[in-house]
Amino acid sequence: MEPRNENKSSILLLHNAMIVTMDSQSRVYQDGAIAIQNNSIIAVGKSAEILPQFSSLSPQILDLSGQILLPGFINTHVHTSQQLGRGIADDVDLLTWLHKRIWPYESNMTEQDSFISTLLCGIELIHSGVTCFAEAGGQHLSGMASAVEVLGLRACLTESIMDWGEGLPASWAARTTEECIKLQEDLFMKHHNTADGRIKVWLGIRQIMNSTDRLLAETRDTAKKLETGIHMHIAEIPLENQLIVETRGVDHGTVTYLEKIKFLQNNLLAAHTVWVNEEEVDCLSKAGVKVSHCPAAAMRMLGFAPIREMLSAGVCVSLGTDGAPSNNRMSIVDEMYLASLVSKGREVFSKGTTDPTALPAETILRMATINGAKSILWDKEIGSLEVGKKADIVVVNPSSWSMMPIHDCISSLVYCMRTENIVSVMCNGCWIMKDKKIITIDEEKVLSMAKHASAELLKRAGIQVPSRMNFL
Amino acid sequence: MEPRNENKSSILLLHNAMIVTMDSQSRVYQDGAIAIQNNSIIAVGKSAEILPQFSSLSPQILDLSGQILLPGFINTHVHTSQQLGRGIADDVDLLTWLHKRIWPYESNMTEQDSFISTLLCGIELIHSGVTCFAEAGGQHLSGMASAVEVLGLRACLTESIMDWGEGLPASWAARTTEECIKLQEDLFMKHHNTADGRIKVWLGIRQIMNSTDRLLAETRDTAKKLETGIHMHIAEIPLENQLIVETRGVDHGTVTYLEKIKFLQNNLLAAHTVWVNEEEVDCLSKAGVKVSHCPAAAMRMLGFAPIREMLSAGVCVSLGTDGAPSNNRMSIVDEMYLASLVSKGREVFSKGTTDPTALPAETILRMATINGAKSILWDKEIGSLEVGKKADIVVVNPSSWSMMPIHDCISSLVYCMRTENIVSVMCNGCWIMKDKKIITIDEEKVLSMAKHASAELLKRAGIQVPSRMNFL
Repeated sequence: MEPRNENKSSILLLHNAMIVTMDSQSRVYQDGAIAIQNNSIIAVGKSAEILPQFSSLSPQILDLSGQILLPGFINTHVHTSQQLGRGIADDVDLLTWLHKRIWPYESNMTEQDSFISTLLCGIELIHSGVTCFAEAGGQHLSGMASAVEVLGLRACLTESIMDWGEGLPASWAARTTEECIKLQEDLFMKHHNTADGRIKVWLGIRQIMNSTDRLLAETRDTAKKLETGIHMHIAEIPLENQLIVETRGVDHGTVTYLEKIKFLQNNLLAAHTVWVNEEEVDCLSKAGVKVSHCPAAAMRMLGFAPIREMLSAGVCVSLGTDGAPSNNRMSIVDEMYLASLVSKGREVFSKGTTDPTALPAETILRMATINGAKSILWDKEIGSLEVGKKADIVVVNPSSWSMMPIHDCISSLVYCMRTENIVSVMCNGCWIMKDKKIITIDEEKVLSMAKHASAELLKRAGIQVPSRMNFL
Repeated sequence: MEPRNENKSSILLLHNAMIVTMDSQSRVYQDGAIAIQNNSIIAVGKSAEILPQFSSLSPQILDLSGQILLPGFINTHVHTSQQLGRGIADDVDLLTWLHKRIWPYESNMTEQDSFISTLLCGIELIHSGVTCFAEAGGQHLSGMASAVEVLGLRACLTESIMDWGEGLPASWAARTTEECIKLQEDLFMKHHNTADGRIKVWLGIRQIMNSTDRLLAETRDTAKKLETGIHMHIAEIPLENQLIVETRGVDHGTVTYLEKIKFLQNNLLAAHTVWVNEEEVDCLSKAGVKVSHCPAAAMRMLGFAPIREMLSAGVCVSLGTDGAPSNNRMSIVDEMYLASLVSKGREVFSKGTTDPTALPAETILRMATINGAKSILWDKEIGSLEVGKKADIVVVNPSSWSMMPIHDCISSLVYCMRTENIVSVMCNGCWIMKDKKIITIDEEKVLSMAKHASAELLKRAGIQVPSRMNFL
């Protein structure tokens, strides 16, 4: 693993690029420059103004002619510890997915598996322009933290937490509510604000069907005490709502119940949140709950979330990839493209025709950047390219067959851009990818480790993926 | 433009690769070899069997260790002449899309524009593993043909044909039915079976709302006479069906009407075909009509086609990208991923939950290969890797962050693979891309020509794309 070059005092000047700031005024500098000192942005604006001011102070001046700078993308729902399980549960029903594949896989992981899985996932995230992610709640947070530290990424890490439920693997079923809270408090003490402040620790609730009321209440109170966020899968499938109605005395589903027990707060990041009615959308909005929309996983396994309605109601909606066994591609670039298609298409079921104007490109770009930052309570420092914020930057080269010609720059970034177009990525003022090569780790070595570790893990978990077609 | 190296008599031997043949027995050779002479496959099987037989006869033996060979993908619905218009109509309603953007754009194209547009589109197709496409019906077929000849691709080319309709650009409105048929007969005589047999000419009907009954009848009869196919957009939007019910005395829509006038034949390639009921699906199946499913464009602009129902009824369904202003990405690789998500998600509206088992990966891979070949009436020569077929081959390198680890090879090809993984492409026995570099044309030169030509075309057509955000 190569060390990163961090000359903390010098000023780095990037100029001659289009800069899509994603600030509150949606400013785009057609010929823009940005000055970075330590890990922060100290100036951003037109090259003609910034260059004379900083060029004599800066030993590193980078001409990015023809390229586009964006704030680093923020993936607000990703299971990094599931990366080694990509392809173990394709085209199977939800129960097989959960009980025969994902639970055996996750419950057999070691901390080293989690470390390798997060490294592998991180490689894909970086190539897709992600500088920060919110872990959805996985196994062995310490393994994830080690990986994030090495990768140079920024992350809100969350342990998978359950204290209740039928058919759980033995090691999970034994965990008490106290142990769940204690484990997370310990992880918070150990890892929160480590790696130059790039790592935060959040609390997790896997889902309501695996949580006691006491776990919900204590998680809410502990998050308040630690001043951190809570990441939870919410209203994923109709069955979930149905069970809540049947067992917890409310008339609709999880969101209604969480409102009733005062769990909905502005530090809650609700993942998926597909099966919510109008009143529940209002509850989310009033409470300031953030929603992570994962278009691919939703289409495949859950359903079509009312994203247009949530945005209209003022809910902060961001984008996530979910985990590799739910989606296969861990790319926010692809999720932007998908988010548009899914929301445009979904209108057919209410209006009788699709609505090609729904969820326009500029809205989606906000979801992937500044809304992502708000969703993880980090928008004071990231999510846009503004003075005082951390230098988390994606460099896009649009001059290739996948984006040319460009008649609508913003929509091209959302609908045409592919990972091929992402050439360099900076996080916290340090380059973590340059010219498509990740410089914080050795990609080949991680791939080789991942291949070995995942084969061993599947063997240990007794997971056999049936072969398709006629292999000879 | 570099000439292609074509030593027609020598045998090329590819070995040590996984070969996904897509033959009728779904054979996959884990360590496979393939021998190619002239433009055809003369042997395919296990390396251990093929290598001893052919290695002494072959001056070119290529070890493709760790790589996967597939039949070239077939894109059965792509508007190559719309490639220069990518991004001119994003997030606008359907009427604006058609009347203010697409019609002005297409009606102002020159043959040279069509040539450049097809070159640019071809670059994207090749990078996405496509060796053959069916043009959806565009402008200046001769321009397309010149481009296909140079690119080294295989194609069924179709001119955009309309002889009726309100609000058409003047140059189109003046065209009579006779002229429509005559033009296509002339193009057939000039271009059919040219470029070493790589180009076929099909007949086109843009859509029923722009066709007289006479055009439909004469197109059907002319196609029969010329022994070629017909490519037509069918049942795209509810309004289309509604107008047909109101004006042509049938009780459902376009497919019902086309059945009534005996237009449904096994040489008809129906694009999109979203708004069809159960009886109409049966009609398509009985008549042997082929359907090109374009998931991205459908979700964005049309609706959710009943693909599962069509496949169950025995309809041959293949995959298309549609045109750049309807989709933005011209990638069959992405359409495979999308096809799965869309069909799995669509089930929510009938069953109340998505069906993650719908449209499994092996079905989708068939849609992109052998079903594509059947759809364009070319399956005797392409669509699978079998002895006697033309050597149209994609070489995939799965050993990267986007596909690793691989636990389910076939689903990884469909759900994880990205264009980054496609390294080399052969069409008609000649390499057209090697190591991600297209060798038939100069990509940079085409990009530069496309940039210039598209700017001029938009100016000529009076198309102004409003800017988003606050450009400074």
